[in-house]
Amino acid sequence: MRILAVGAGGVGSAAALIAARRDFFDLFVVADYDLARAEKAAAATTDARFAAAQVDASSAGSIAALCREHGITHVFNAVDPRFVMPVFEGAAAAGAHYLDMAMSLSRPNPVSPYEETGVKLGDEQFAVAGQWETAGRLALVGIGVEPGLSDIFARYAAEHLFSDIDEIGVRDGSNLVVEGYEFAPSFSVWTTIEECLNPPVIWERGRGWYTTEPFAEPEIFDFPGGIGPVECVHVEHEEVLLIPRWVEARKVTFKYGLGGEFIEVLKTLRKLGLDKTDPVRVKGVDVSPRDVVAAVLPDPATLGDRMTGKTCAGTWVTGTGKDGNPREVYLYHLVDNEWSMREYGAQAVVWQTAVNPIVALELLAAGTWSGAGVLGPEAFDPVPFLDKLTEYGSPWELQER
Amino acid sequence: MRILAVGAGGVGSAAALIAARRDFFDLFVVADYDLARAEKAAAATTDARFAAAQVDASSAGSIAALCREHGITHVFNAVDPRFVMPVFEGAAAAGAHYLDMAMSLSRPNPVSPYEETGVKLGDEQFAVAGQWETAGRLALVGIGVEPGLSDIFARYAAEHLFSDIDEIGVRDGSNLVVEGYEFAPSFSVWTTIEECLNPPVIWERGRGWYTTEPFAEPEIFDFPGGIGPVECVHVEHEEVLLIPRWVEARKVTFKYGLGGEFIEVLKTLRKLGLDKTDPVRVKGVDVSPRDVVAAVLPDPATLGDRMTGKTCAGTWVTGTGKDGNPREVYLYHLVDNEWSMREYGAQAVVWQTAVNPIVALELLAAGTWSGAGVLGPEAFDPVPFLDKLTEYGSPWELQER
Repeated sequence: MRILAVGAGGVGSAAALIAARRDFFDLFVVADYDLARAEKAAAATTDARFAAAQVDASSAGSIAALCREHGITHVFNAVDPRFVMPVFEGAAAAGAHYLDMAMSLSRPNPVSPYEETGVKLGDEQFAVAGQWETAGRLALVGIGVEPGLSDIFARYAAEHLFSDIDEIGVRDGSNLVVEGYEFAPSFSVWTTIEECLNPPVIWERGRGWYTTEPFAEPEIFDFPGGIGPVECVHVEHEEVLLIPRWVEARKVTFKYGLGGEFIEVLKTLRKLGLDKTDPVRVKGVDVSPRDVVAAVLPDPATLGDRMTGKTCAGTWVTGTGKDGNPREVYLYHLVDNEWSMREYGAQAVVWQTAVNPIVALELLAAGTWSGAGVLGPEAFDPVPFLDKLTEYGSPWELQER
Repeated sequence: MRILAVGAGGVGSAAALIAARRDFFDLFVVADYDLARAEKAAAATTDARFAAAQVDASSAGSIAALCREHGITHVFNAVDPRFVMPVFEGAAAAGAHYLDMAMSLSRPNPVSPYEETGVKLGDEQFAVAGQWETAGRLALVGIGVEPGLSDIFARYAAEHLFSDIDEIGVRDGSNLVVEGYEFAPSFSVWTTIEECLNPPVIWERGRGWYTTEPFAEPEIFDFPGGIGPVECVHVEHEEVLLIPRWVEARKVTFKYGLGGEFIEVLKTLRKLGLDKTDPVRVKGVDVSPRDVVAAVLPDPATLGDRMTGKTCAGTWVTGTGKDGNPREVYLYHLVDNEWSMREYGAQAVVWQTAVNPIVALELLAAGTWSGAGVLGPEAFDPVPFLDKLTEYGSPWELQER
């Protein structure tokens, strides 16, 4: 296996460090628009299988050329979701398999954005699924932690825990705190705004996908591992688009444990128009308001050593158990920032995202997982994945509720 | 009287239109950094006594030169408070009298900003009061609506309504709504941030001036004229610095009726650092976050025709009445936006600010008011001012509470 990782940001760099401990691949090229950043990530592994390259992720041609130059078999997309399509198309052009952690972006319904879907997350990728299948190539989409591990939990619940499922609700929360800042998000604020202010999507059997108002249906979800109750709201997330394609349920939701304070901040940014990405003219220069918000806040990837607490990603499932009785479980994965910083020098959320595509690549290298077309993580057998995660030193857990 | 109005923004332009209906002056030069804006404001009066000029308000030399060129007797400062000192110094250099509607800016106490004052509003101006007095020139500071009319109400209450005053509390609130915007402040957001996020100042007999936390001691004040209850919080405002110098009271406060929503917005801007004026680097360009906030919001001076509602400025006074009984009054001035737009084409808050310096100039021209040094509005006889305001078609009112 010869891997091209596109993007040497927090997740790409952590993925390289995780992969360096495994022997399933021959070459791992870390590419970034900023060559120095790619070189730094490759060098940090102190592993001769790693190389660095410069790439323009907005150009499918640049991706394809780099694939051909290095005989790449698998492209692992670790850049901003804005660049999903060129990286995806570049991999296809070069005949490589493809993995990402976020799918092609959505566009709201122009008429009733908070009732009906428009272009959905991943629609542009699923539109060409037939071509990938015909070519015998796999695009494994949404294989981070959420989407990714959360989808695998959904498939595991359906196969091994339930005879009939009412709701599959992905629930994400943390008690991460950054010392020394009054307000410091633990994840890219640009992406959080994108996820939280787009119309949230919900799936129901008989109705299909539909949307609602941002921050709709707030609920308090009690997270395990000492995190405790956190206010969660509907947000747009890939799981809601992926899970219903492969797993039977009456309803699929995603609620993000932003907490009351972060929800208020996002509502205010939206009210003022500071979430907008279109440039505004400010004293003779043009800037995107959302970029200004990101610029005034500290960069979360650099805050790992000032952070304390745990992050929890998981899938809450209700329905009828294998024994015919009502059952409610929460399948989850906790990462303690202290552990991830000590073990990998990576912040908890970043590490938790990065480990899953490496596990998946290892299963693909071994042939344990195989397939062609555009497939979500829930299209595969969940057990070897979950076992491998434990083997990587980061076990998942099951809570009966 | 030969007037130089520095600044042809909303207030400067409205002041010119108000002055054009009066005969107390010979020349009214409207000056702005942007000559076209000054020409537009002067032309709107269709009055031959008005002229336009270009000026750099950050340069005392530019102000003084313009004064000498036109034989100016009174400089009326209608620009951003950042330029108070150069305009004030330019007037002094040219031997002109001076009026403003906001005083020189404060700087927080570097050690205990939310307990003790640092450099207070107006300190830089009062520091040279002796020079103005010696020169026989008057600097009438804070003669807008708040400060301005609110200070005059305080002096009126002390002279004509009370034998002993407990508290003088300026209270400002509105029910102005801008159609078509989810969030649109009716006053400069730049200045509102400055006023509300600086440490609020309070005066108490025996203790003097001290500061507290922004948004401290929220209270619901029930405003007259159909506005009703609005949440008010302590903010830094000139009245608290001016009133105790000339009027006896146990306590002087200023609370601004921002309303719960605006308070939340300001708290969030502060938490994120979007209130800051120091530039941040955003994708290769430097911008001030507060300027970006102002740029994404609509310009309040241009919203008058989409606005409905009234604005209320007033002074609430408690103590012992002339008859020896406890008394509580609210002296106030209401402007209905529909009226100010129809009569003057000016938004209510802008018009309410602009009328007061014109009334004061008329009293100075007639010799009804006179003085030398740096004086606040409460240093003068309030009755002729209040009578003149009524004569201008905008009467004040008294509410027993």
